[in-house]
Amino acid sequence: MELYTPEYFMNEALKQAQMAFEDGEIPVGAVVVCRNRIIARAYNQTERLKDVTAHAEILAITAASGSLGAKYLTECELYVTLEPCIMCAGAGFWSQMGAVHYGASDPKRGFSRLAEPILHPKTKVSNGLLAKEAKDLIDRFFLKLRK
Amino acid sequence: MELYTPEYFMNEALKQAQMAFEDGEIPVGAVVVCRNRIIARAYNQTERLKDVTAHAEILAITAASGSLGAKYLTECELYVTLEPCIMCAGAGFWSQMGAVHYGASDPKRGFSRLAEPILHPKTKVSNGLLAKEAKDLIDRFFLKLRK
Repeated sequence: MELYTPEYFMNEALKQAQMAFEDGEIPVGAVVVCRNRIIARAYNQTERLKDVTAHAEILAITAASGSLGAKYLTECELYVTLEPCIMCAGAGFWSQMGAVHYGASDPKRGFSRLAEPILHPKTKVSNGLLAKEAKDLIDRFFLKLRK
Repeated sequence: MELYTPEYFMNEALKQAQMAFEDGEIPVGAVVVCRNRIIARAYNQTERLKDVTAHAEILAITAASGSLGAKYLTECELYVTLEPCIMCAGAGFWSQMGAVHYGASDPKRGFSRLAEPILHPKTKVSNGLLAKEAKDLIDRFFLKLRK
């Protein structure tokens, strides 16, 4: 896999999701890329931290801002394996994230089910990259949970 | 002011907002109440932490969960001086907060401008408590900022 392609970055997000899986967390992972460099990596830690706000995207946005020492992430791109929820899309709005790329869609909890736009009007959005891999991991997680 | 009334709790949230004001932050404060006891207090720290996710409500929810050692806050009530934004209402949803009481309305960024409900269906909502005091503080903040 060539470096610095969207596939590479999404695969790095997927590696984070795999770490969540191994940790017993709903497997969602995210990275934030700024000028072709990954400045933050995070995965869902709601169980470990006992904190519903500890979604991969929130942790990644906080880490990216910490890395840059800046609140606004207009030059950054968020890669996340699952469609962000409304909370995370709201965080994306405030950060003025340059782009949000998500893998699998989340028809039940994803932000795009709302009629109104949640993300910042300047934020570019794409989806579907490594979606099957992201969804398979989540399906495996819930299958294992039910056993 | 008598203890353990909604006015008392909202006034405690207002004290947090005043601390935000003194810190040069947009003055919004929050407390989380569980069985008539304040288990978390927080104010907006987006500037200090250079983190757009550091809204009073997010910090208060994280602190409340830490205090209880539990992800879900079904027995808790959030008092916040300003209407929560979409991100914070989304966090309220995930926490299954028992009730959300907000002071001043935020027609531009508040969650209630959306057609769809964001909070959990079981979450009780009220607004208007100490709204004038909350709004006055915010108005004073922006007036000072513009000077």
